[in-house]
Formats: sequence, structure tokens, C-alpha cells
Amino acid sequence: MRFASDNSGPVHPRVMEALVAANEGWALPYGNDDWTRNAADKVREVFEAPDAAVYFTATGTSANVILLSTLTQGTQTIFCTPEAHIHVDECNAPEFYTGGAKLTLVEAEHGRMLPKALRAEIQTLREGGVHSPQPATLSLTQVTESGTVYTLSALKSLVDVAKDAGLSVHLDGARFSNALVALGVTAAEMSWKLGIDAVSFGGTKNGLMGVEAAVIFDPEKAWEFELRRKRGGHLFSKNRYLGAQFGAYLTDDLWLEMARTANRSAARLEQGLAGVAKVTHPRDANMIFAELSRDRHQRLNAAGAQYQVFGSLDGVADEPLPCRLVCDWSITEAQIDRFVEIAQG
Amino acid sequence: MRFASDNSGPVHPRVMEALVAANEGWALPYGNDDWTRNAADKVREVFEAPDAAVYFTATGTSANVILLSTLTQGTQTIFCTPEAHIHVDECNAPEFYTGGAKLTLVEAEHGRMLPKALRAEIQTLREGGVHSPQPATLSLTQVTESGTVYTLSALKSLVDVAKDAGLSVHLDGARFSNALVALGVTAAEMSWKLGIDAVSFGGTKNGLMGVEAAVIFDPEKAWEFELRRKRGGHLFSKNRYLGAQFGAYLTDDLWLEMARTANRSAARLEQGLAGVAKVTHPRDANMIFAELSRDRHQRLNAAGAQYQVFGSLDGVADEPLPCRLVCDWSITEAQIDRFVEIAQG
Amino acid sequence: MRFASDNSGPVHPRVMEALVAANEGWALPYGNDDWTRNAADKVREVFEAPDAAVYFTATGTSANVILLSTLTQGTQTIFCTPEAHIHVDECNAPEFYTGGAKLTLVEAEHGRMLPKALRAEIQTLREGGVHSPQPATLSLTQVTESGTVYTLSALKSLVDVAKDAGLSVHLDGARFSNALVALGVTAAEMSWKLGIDAVSFGGTKNGLMGVEAAVIFDPEKAWEFELRRKRGGHLFSKNRYLGAQFGAYLTDDLWLEMARTANRSAARLEQGLAGVAKVTHPRDANMIFAELSRDRHQRLNAAGAQYQVFGSLDGVADEPLPCRLVCDWSITEAQIDRFVEIAQG
Amino acid sequence: MRFASDNSGPVHPRVMEALVAANEGWALPYGNDDWTRNAADKVREVFEAPDAAVYFTATGTSANVILLSTLTQGTQTIFCTPEAHIHVDECNAPEFYTGGAKLTLVEAEHGRMLPKALRAEIQTLREGGVHSPQPATLSLTQVTESGTVYTLSALKSLVDVAKDAGLSVHLDGARFSNALVALGVTAAEMSWKLGIDAVSFGGTKNGLMGVEAAVIFDPEKAWEFELRRKRGGHLFSKNRYLGAQFGAYLTDDLWLEMARTANRSAARLEQGLAGVAKVTHPRDANMIFAELSRDRHQRLNAAGAQYQVFGSLDGVADEPLPCRLVCDWSITEAQIDRFVEIAQG
Repeated sequence: MRFASDNSGPVHPRVMEALVAANEGWALPYGNDDWTRNAADKVREVFEAPDAAVYFTATGTSANVILLSTLTQGTQTIFCTPEAHIHVDECNAPEFYTGGAKLTLVEAEHGRMLPKALRAEIQTLREGGVHSPQPATLSLTQVTESGTVYTLSALKSLVDVAKDAGLSVHLDGARFSNALVALGVTAAEMSWKLGIDAVSFGGTKNGLMGVEAAVIFDPEKAWEFELRRKRGGHLFSKNRYLGAQFGAYLTDDLWLEMARTANRSAARLEQGLAGVAKVTHPRDANMIFAELSRDRHQRLNAAGAQYQVFGSLDGVADEPLPCRLVCDWSITEAQIDRFVEIAQG
Repeated sequence: MRFASDNSGPVHPRVMEALVAANEGWALPYGNDDWTRNAADKVREVFEAPDAAVYFTATGTSANVILLSTLTQGTQTIFCTPEAHIHVDECNAPEFYTGGAKLTLVEAEHGRMLPKALRAEIQTLREGGVHSPQPATLSLTQVTESGTVYTLSALKSLVDVAKDAGLSVHLDGARFSNALVALGVTAAEMSWKLGIDAVSFGGTKNGLMGVEAAVIFDPEKAWEFELRRKRGGHLFSKNRYLGAQFGAYLTDDLWLEMARTANRSAARLEQGLAGVAKVTHPRDANMIFAELSRDRHQRLNAAGAQYQVFGSLDGVADEPLPCRLVCDWSITEAQIDRFVEIAQG
Repeated sequence: MRFASDNSGPVHPRVMEALVAANEGWALPYGNDDWTRNAADKVREVFEAPDAAVYFTATGTSANVILLSTLTQGTQTIFCTPEAHIHVDECNAPEFYTGGAKLTLVEAEHGRMLPKALRAEIQTLREGGVHSPQPATLSLTQVTESGTVYTLSALKSLVDVAKDAGLSVHLDGARFSNALVALGVTAAEMSWKLGIDAVSFGGTKNGLMGVEAAVIFDPEKAWEFELRRKRGGHLFSKNRYLGAQFGAYLTDDLWLEMARTANRSAARLEQGLAGVAKVTHPRDANMIFAELSRDRHQRLNAAGAQYQVFGSLDGVADEPLPCRLVCDWSITEAQIDRFVEIAQG
Repeated sequence: MRFASDNSGPVHPRVMEALVAANEGWALPYGNDDWTRNAADKVREVFEAPDAAVYFTATGTSANVILLSTLTQGTQTIFCTPEAHIHVDECNAPEFYTGGAKLTLVEAEHGRMLPKALRAEIQTLREGGVHSPQPATLSLTQVTESGTVYTLSALKSLVDVAKDAGLSVHLDGARFSNALVALGVTAAEMSWKLGIDAVSFGGTKNGLMGVEAAVIFDPEKAWEFELRRKRGGHLFSKNRYLGAQFGAYLTDDLWLEMARTANRSAARLEQGLAGVAKVTHPRDANMIFAELSRDRHQRLNAAGAQYQVFGSLDGVADEPLPCRLVCDWSITEAQIDRFVEIAQG
């Protein structure tokens, strides 16, 4: 009963097979190999963006911050929500890579940034002139950190505010695939067609060993990305093993299949918990934010279920405690049903 | 009628005389001169801190950020209010000097940080472990950016929260003198006796040409400050001219006399505006935050009064518009009374 | 005939098997898994350093710069040779991670730093006081970038100069294993027993997919390393796949076996080239720096041999052109002999 | 007998008078005052550059590094000589302000960079591709740190190498005035007419209290400079006092008059030392590098002469010891002659 995160399950067997298959002979280092080229081409196909610059990095944070620092200087600011992974969970990596840019927090509801609040923050900073950090970049997360998914039109409203103000737009798509299948749209529709400039297209949380694709639609920014990747220590000599993973990911819709499975599992779990859990954010993809009474948490904990509970397990039995439940591609129906059974207890 | 800021008036004549007097012959560079030594000794006397490290820099931002970067590393965070000068008005200088530390914003009322909110923010970050920036430093502003003054016991509550959590405490005292005379306490009582580790002790906003004293009570941190001052380009070769100013400032209580005058002027202005202005933050020192109707602002503007109005002068005549009015040591009663007369109109 | 680098060959089959074996079920993220723990324990055993902090990163640059930035601040300097990988091949990564520390270049012969030159450089900077970057860290490379290996006593002389001056010492051991088998000493003898504080213990150039162990002998520095790893985007969620590789590496002496093979191959190649190649640096491990006449390079190139030639292939036939030849664990005797045959041709 | 540096003498009386005169009433802050505007206009006139962006900072290091960071990013490199002030005497300020750019040292003779060596260094880095820092900026010092002056054609050769490679060129002109009068050329001829992009035009070492003009000939870079000045803590609120100094400096050729006096004094000193001092670099302006026997240094030291001696005063009497002697505008003929008399003794 593993619902703590989607970053802890195994690698999909087809990805592992691709790694083993790639382990033959000698390959040019630093991404000048066929596996990397092939995987980058596949990303460009998926995004219908033949000119896009595509790179592979091994962690979500590195994809985010190399992209953000390609778009943002140290005298500038990045707009994000108070819940944003880049603000909360990356130990100042964005500040570090940009040389000291600020993260300006913009009000959000259920993890989704409010366009009006974004406009107001930009306006305030503009009035500050040289005394303020300069508005440069909007960073949105899709699936959001609250498990919700922006509709295309919600994204569009935010991107429009950014573009009106001359900002670049980055999408933290650690769970890009889960959002895509939730909305039933294409990668192009959820990115450059809206005006988004750069995407961290996640793989690690969706069945890979540790690969994200960093996609930049304006190829003129490619070289600046490459320099920052190298300077960050993220250029792999044996890059073929990143390429091989991502190639397999995008072969025969494996990435979509795994995302669909994960979302379906979360739906099953949500349904199963009906009556005992109060869902606090709309469950749009593979994450559930909910409140369960403390005694239910205690029972689940005793049974070995793993997931995030916010608060102490000790206390009044029927007090509701918030928690987060995440499903990855590998969770089984049996595990879900067992969890439900205990929770329903 | 100059109420825009206390950073725009002339230098006090006694300070100017000291500069002229210092302009004799040759002096060792980089602060190894008698004027600097003498002024630093005076600061130590004022603070009753014989071991304190004392340096002079030419801008408030430089004093703040060299101190903050002496106390804070790039993987860490500084706690301040959303209105803090270091967050709002220094174009990411704290992020820059610290190598990418974050500024964690803590809820405040009338510019004064709430201890409970500080404790909660520290707690949240602690739980994040390596994923969160590490709590390192609390930075408070006295007089606050809203023109209010913390009582000693209010400061104490905040410092205690910080100290319990192992944080250092910095005081942005751009208007330190104004706060001191407002409270009628000593510099020691308003700093190290509370547990404060470092103070930006302002001079520029209180009659100097451009000097702040950076005071660090633990002399073991002195060398790290000196390196950051040099690396920031803030070590003056002809440092005697900074020392001469600050020496004059602390001679015969000139600093207190100017601060008292400024506070008294603001009180007179506030009193004069009674009935037409709604004061929005308690006026504790030399700054007034108030709302006046737009037509009053229009009349004042037409008469050449200079001060900050937040909003457009065009619009409904009797709509209240917020503004900020600051008195420095040089403002005359005649100017104040004339301003009042027009506002009362 | 692949002699361009040891960063381009395949992963050793036993390492691949370990990866496949690790791909079972769920594991705690961020290194809190058994594979990581097991591999770290093995590193501690190899180094006879039960208290050492051990971490795994995926690139040599990241291991180097996270360690260097744990030991060095932005106001300080790192001493290295003009040929050092950290100076020449990391696109300012050390400057970036340390927040702007300088790399002070110290004279070297055949890639080996001269102790007298190191002492002189430290002395010069010390005299500069606050105007100079502060001497902080010595970084040595073993095997050097010129393919030579320091004897233990040569290392000792350098470490002693550093320690006398209060510096920390880092060893860039991208080819640590090759040096170890070349000298026939233990990991402890070639590190902490000499006074070395931190080692980048390479795996990628010696048969792994992409893993280096960062070893810090003073565990009090561990947390600072962890923060910088996270902030650099180098903390892997699925860390077990790093641990599994390094665990296999250190099992049944695989690491030593691969290094011995590589060194032996280079010796065979050097021997084979006797008469036609002038070796320009002593060949101590798995790299040969030599001069061959241009026509020999032309023949080798035409036959598809891959290696670094410094200069143009077009020109006078019998002019000597320098080149670098590197052997990894996977190069076959047949390839070596074929290369020799063509070169001798 | 003050020959230690030109950064320690008094401010010229006409500059002091201008400061006193500026101390009237209220002035808009942050450089929006008449004194600043007037002085900037005068700089533009002197440089015959009506579109140039001109700013005033209070230290030479700040002028250098704000300019350098406007021209250079953290993934890039700045070329300078091993003696360059920015490398030797600014405690990593260039690395800090640029976010970690490297300083690539280029061979020089008598402090003057060799064009051939510059071209070779650029070439080497270009070949490194993404692994090398990217060539961005050439920084030259005029008067050099060895007291020599580049001829215009020597400067031209270096600028041409830089421009061919797409680099920007910065001139550290801490002693710009001394070089100008030494060569008898115009400011335009010694800057933009050669292709130089930015100049630190010194005042502090030539009779001011602490002001340098930062001049950028391409006004499109102005805003980036302003942001970096603010972020560095170098934007003065009471900027009029910087403007007033520089305005007086450029009035009635005071700057040239002081520089001529300083150079003339150095010539007189050099002449006086003929026979007892061996000049080690051509004395082109106001600095002498020479060797005197130790006993002469001992006598001078005993008589209270202040200047830099490189080496210990204790030792063999007739051993030559190198020293540096600098004349500023305020040194008197009597002091020079007395120094000579003792040295000749």
C-alpha cells in the first residue's frame, strides 16, 4: 500500500529492457549518440514542434531550474504559487541557478494561480522601477501541487496575462502526462499553442528511472540552456542511457498508458474512500488530498500503508487529519482495495 | 513642502563642517585612519558594546545585505515581513549577496511581524528537511516600513522565537534614531540586550550625506563582514570621509536631536491634518500613512507639495486616496503649516 | 578502435544485472533505501573510514563541485593546476557552486602540482589581506589530467603545504581506481591517511552508467553537502539505481579488476607504439599522451580510429602531432593490436 | 613623504567647495537631481559621446564590477592580465557580480597584455565548446598596474583581437586621466574610437573623495547597469554629492591639471632617483616601479617615508629590493626632493 509518492516505484520493464538493449558497444559522449537523438526527435513529434530544443536531465529540479535560469536573470523575478514545487521543495535551487532571482508568490485556489492576482503582482513590481526585481517569468505547474489540473482555458488566461506583460512562461510538468490524459488534449495544445515557452516534461514520476525532458520551443535559447546544464553538472557523458529511457517512454504510448493507469487508480481510490474521506481539492489526476479521521489513519498506519499525513497520529480519534495519497503506474488494484477496506474499517 | 522621503534633504551643517575639517593631509586608506577609528569607538560607546565590530558603508542597502550575508548562506532563508525594505526595495540585493538565500515572508500588522506567524513559518520549513531552505536569520525593521515602532517587549517576543529556533537576528535600523527617541530607550536596550546580533544603524535618512554603521556584536564575525564588504565593492579607500560624518553625527547628540526634530515635525503634521486625514497606521515616529480625499491631494499637488500618493490623482473628488508623508530633520514648521493649511483648505 | 575517452564505453554487465535486480517493488526515495545504504557502507569499508559521509551523484562535475562548495566560500580560492578538469572542463561549475570563489592556478609538471609553487601562491594571497581571495581549498587530481599518477609521497608533500596553511584538500578521483592499482596502495592510504578531506571517487569512467561517490571524512560537513546536492538538483528520488550500480562496482573487486584491465591495455598500447610514438608525459595509468607523425594520424583516422588529435590532420606528412589515447575496461586486445598495426604501418 | 598610493591624499579644495555649495535644500533622490545630470552631461562632452550612459559610483571596484557584470554572464569569461586589479585586488568581486564568470589570465609584459597571447587564449576556449567558459569580455587597465601606459595603437591591436572574436571591451581607467595626459590624446580617442565599450573613469585616485564615472557607449545596456548598481547596493539616495564632485572635477580642466601634476611629480622623482634606483617598468605616468638597495629603503623608512616595499627591510645592506612609488596631485616638490635626498644619501 504505497501511496506516499509517485517517485518511489519501480521502472517499467519496457524501459529497463531499453536500457539493457542500449548497453552495446561504444557511443559518442555528451548526447551525441543515436539514443539521445532518437528520443529528442520523439519529443519533438509528440509536441508537434520540429524546431524545439530538447534535452534530458536526470531530476525534476534540474529540468526546472536550468530552464528557469535560461529564461530569468538574477535581477528579475519568477511568479509562482505559494505551493509551487520550485518554491517549497527545491531548497533555493531556482534562486541559485538564476543568480539570485526572486520567487514572487501569487495567490492560488486549489493550487491553481489566479490570473487577477498575477496581474496585480506584476503591476506592483513594475511601479517599483529599479528598486524592484523585474518581472521576467511565469512558472505554472500542471498537474498542480494540489493535485488539480488547469483546463486549457485556465492556462490560457494566465499565459495571456504573462505575455501581455512581456514575460516568458515555464511549465513544471513533473506530471505532464497525467494532466494530458486527464484533459484528453495534445502536448502541443497544452504548451506552445497556448504561448508556453518551455516545459519540464516529466518521466521520473511516471515509470522512468530518472529522466525529464526539458523542452524549449524557441531554439535560439538552446545554447544558453546547454551552458547552464553543463555548469550545473547535469551534462551526462553516457547520455545514451537517458535517451534510451525516454525513447522507450514515448514508444507505443507507454507514457500515456502509465499515466492513464495512475489516474484510473486514483479515481478508484477516491471512489473507494467515499463516505469516509472528505476530498479537499478536486481530484483531477493521480493525487488525492483528503481528510480522514485520525483513527482511520491509525489503522492504515498499523497495517503498513505508506502515505503523507499532515499532523500527529496521536490525539482525538475522530478528529479529521489531512493527508495526501498518490498513485503511480505500478500500484495494483489489490493494494488500492485493501487500503479502502482498512480505511472504511 | 518636501515630504516624499527623508533621503533627500541636505546634510546637517555640523556634518559638513566635519567633512571639511577632515580634508587635511594624508590618511591611511581602507579605514585605517583616525576618523574611522574615532567614529567606530563612538558607535561602541552609544551601544555600550566595547567588543562590537563596527563598519561604515555608504548606503542602507549595502549595510543590510553585507550584514545579512555575513549571517546567512545560500541554502538558507531570512524571515521578514511582506513590506520589508529588503524584500520590496532592494532589487534582490539580499538574494544576491547571500548567494541565493530565500526571503520567507511572515505575516505582519501595521508593519510589525507577528511572533506566532514567525514560529509557524520556521516550523513548516524545519519539517521540509533538505528540501526546504534552512531557517537562518530574522530581519526586523525598526522604525517599520509602515511607520510604526515596535515596543521593546514586542521586539523581545520576536527575538525569542528566533533564538529558540537557533536563528540570528538582524535589525534594519535605517530609522534607528527615530525609533530610539520615540521609545525613549538606549541603543543597547533596543539591540543586543534583546538578543539582536547585528544592526544597520542609519545615518543617511537622518542628516548625513550617505553613511550607515553596520554593527555586529559578536566580533568573531567581523572578518567575514570585511570580506563581503570588499567583495561587494563597498570598501572605501578614503574611508575617513565616512568616519568624519559619523563622528559628527554622534557628537553632542546631533543624531538624537535630528531624530527628535523629525518625529516632532511628523507629530505636528499629523495633528494639523486631524479631521481631514485618516491615519491608517499608528504614527510612531517620523512617517505618516494616511488617507486624504483626492481633491485635497490635487490641491497639494498643484501647490507643489512633494510626497507619495498611492493611486491616480484623476478621479472622483472626495474618494480617499492613501499617501505617505515623511519628515526629515530639515523640514520647517512653516512648510508643515503651509501643507496643513492647503490640505485643510 | 575507441581511444577517445573512458566515458563512452558500455556499462559492465555485472552492473547492468545489479540494476535489473534492483528494479523490484517500491523503495523509499532520496537515498533512504537499502541499495544506497549498502553501497555507502561498502565505500566506507573500502576507505576504512567508518564515520565518513558518502553520497552518490551521477556526474563527475557534480561530485567535484558539491564537495568543493562544501569546503569553499565565495570570498575564497581553490588551488589547482592549469590543466585541472575543474578549471578547464566544467564551464565555471566550481565558481558557480561556490558562489564566485576563484581558482588560483599553480604551476605543474606533467600535470602534477609543484609544492613550492603552491606555497608561494598561498603566501602571495595571504599578503593581500582583505583584497585577495582567501586561501581555502587545494584540489588535486589523481590520475592527473596528463595521465600521470602522484606517488603517495608527492601527494603528501602537497597536502602538507595545504594543511600548514589551514586549507582543506579535495581529490578529484575521476580515475581514482586506475591510480590505486597503478600504485598498489589502499584507498585509505591514498586519501585520509595523507590528510585529504574529501574525494570524488569515480565510477562513470570505469564501467558504470553514471555514478560517482562523494566521500567526506569529517561527518560534520555531511549536512552542508546534502543541502548543496539538493540545491544543485542532484538529489535523486529513485536513488536506489545509483546505489545498486556502486554496490556492484565494489563487489568482488569489480572496480579494481576494470581499472587493472584499463591500465594494462594502455601499457600494451604504449608498448606497441614504441618506435613510432614519442610519449610526452609518463604513462602511469590508462591514458597516453604522445606525438605521432601526421601521416600515421591520417592512416589511423582513415581506418576509423577514434581519439583526440591536437592540431589539423592536413599538413606536412612527417610533422609530429600530439594526441591523447585513453583505454577503458572494455577495449579489446584486438582493437589495441589493430591500432598499433596501422600506426606502425 | 607619502608615496604609498594615490588613494590617500586629501580632496582638492575646489571639489570640497562644490560639495558645500551643493548642500542646499532638497533634491530628488537616486540621481534625479541637477548635479548628477550636469556631471553626466560633462562626462558625455569630455568623451564626445552624446548618447553614452553615464553613472557615478563611489569606489573603483564597484564601477569595474557593475560594468563587467553588465557585459558578462556567469557561464562566460573575462580576459585580463595576471596583474589586473580586478584579478588581484578585488576579493572575487568580478566573479561575485557576474554570478561566477571566470577571469582568464593573459600573458603581459610590463603590465601590458600581449595581443598574440589574447588570441591564443580565446582560441583555446572556443575549442572547448560547452565545457569551457565562453569568451565574453576583455578588460584592460590604463594606466596599467605596472605603471605603464598603452599607446593608442597598442590598445587598438588588443581591441581588434577582441572585436574579431565578438568580445566586449572594458577599460579599467582608475588612472584614466594620468594616461590621457601622458599620451596627449582625447578621451574619445582612448575609448570608443578604438572600439572600447565601457570605461571606469576614475576620480578617487585623482583628487575626489570617492567617485568614479561608469561610462557605457551603447545606451541600450544602460538599464542592465542600473539594475546591477541597485542590486549591488551602489545606488545612492543622495546622489547629488557624487554628481557635485564629478562636476567640479570636469570644470576648468581640474581633472587634467591634477593628473598632469601627479605625472610631473613622478617624473621629478624618477629623475632624482637616477643612479640609485633601477626602474623595472617604464615610468609612463604617476607610478614608479624600481629597485633600491636595502640600506636606502632602511634610511627612507627611518625618515618616515611611506611607500610599498616588496620584501623584508632586514637583510644584506646592498641587496636590491623592489618597491612602488606613487605620486598623487597633492604631493609637493619639497616632499619629493627630501625623499630623493635621503635615497641618494
